[in-house]
Amino acid sequence: MLKPEKHDPLNRSVGHVLDIIGEGWSILIIREAFLGTRRFEEFQGRLGIARNILTARLKKLCANEILDRVPVKEGAKRHEYILTTKGKEMMPLLVALTHWGDKWVYGENNKPVIFLDREQGEPIPQVQVYSAQGEVLRPRDVMIKAGPGATREARERIEELNKNE
Amino acid sequence: MLKPEKHDPLNRSVGHVLDIIGEGWSILIIREAFLGTRRFEEFQGRLGIARNILTARLKKLCANEILDRVPVKEGAKRHEYILTTKGKEMMPLLVALTHWGDKWVYGENNKPVIFLDREQGEPIPQVQVYSAQGEVLRPRDVMIKAGPGATREARERIEELNKNE
Repeated sequence: MLKPEKHDPLNRSVGHVLDIIGEGWSILIIREAFLGTRRFEEFQGRLGIARNILTARLKKLCANEILDRVPVKEGAKRHEYILTTKGKEMMPLLVALTHWGDKWVYGENNKPVIFLDREQGEPIPQVQVYSAQGEVLRPRDVMIKAGPGATREARERIEELNKNE
Repeated sequence: MLKPEKHDPLNRSVGHVLDIIGEGWSILIIREAFLGTRRFEEFQGRLGIARNILTARLKKLCANEILDRVPVKEGAKRHEYILTTKGKEMMPLLVALTHWGDKWVYGENNKPVIFLDREQGEPIPQVQVYSAQGEVLRPRDVMIKAGPGATREARERIEELNKNE
């Protein structure tokens, strides 16, 4: 199959995200890392994942700079996996994905997991798209324009989209 | 491979999301729908996707109730694809995914696409996770608890996670 990201430079970054989260287990490993899991044995025990698959996924998450493999302390032989800045910035994506999935699979009143604000102990509201003024935006309130990194092809597609509105 | 969602009921909804967005092209079709594309020919032309693949993906997106296939007007033979409520609620996920992907693939100053608030014409700020009080939450500010739909297995895993902190 023609890979979307090969075809259209506009879509390279979507391809990158799916390459990272789309593979079985990867997103669950990232979620565990957010929940504080660091050691290989902990990931293995909590996810019940085969060791060879976990090894491959952790390697790839490190190669993609989502996780960093570091000694547990200076000079130690044992290693642990911690989220990089790039990995930490996945949080809104991960929370939005879980909120949406739980709502539409389990239903609003039947969610298996609730995210809490640690300090207040209150549930975290649904992740929303806000305007710079803080208003919640619906799909019809959003449009796109070409950014500084748009190729000519991308620019033309965006112009065509906006023309057709 | 053992599918994650089969193994752990906590992860069924993540499995559902990845089933929808993980397959090549699906997320790009959803994004086109958000940008106003409705007709088969338009999707085909704008994405440059093979007709048989587009047919299969649209069918699955309808089966998963992301898109709805409706006559262009009452009694018409031609159909178009419109986002359902379930599909529209993917917006925060989609914007978070694009923001993150663009930032980490192209870099902050080299983004191919910029989302604008249609009314103000201003760029949409990064999607964030907020507390009920409106504060931006970082990973360490978030914890989880079992929801009403948690199975005993999920409940035990969440308790173990929280115990280890």
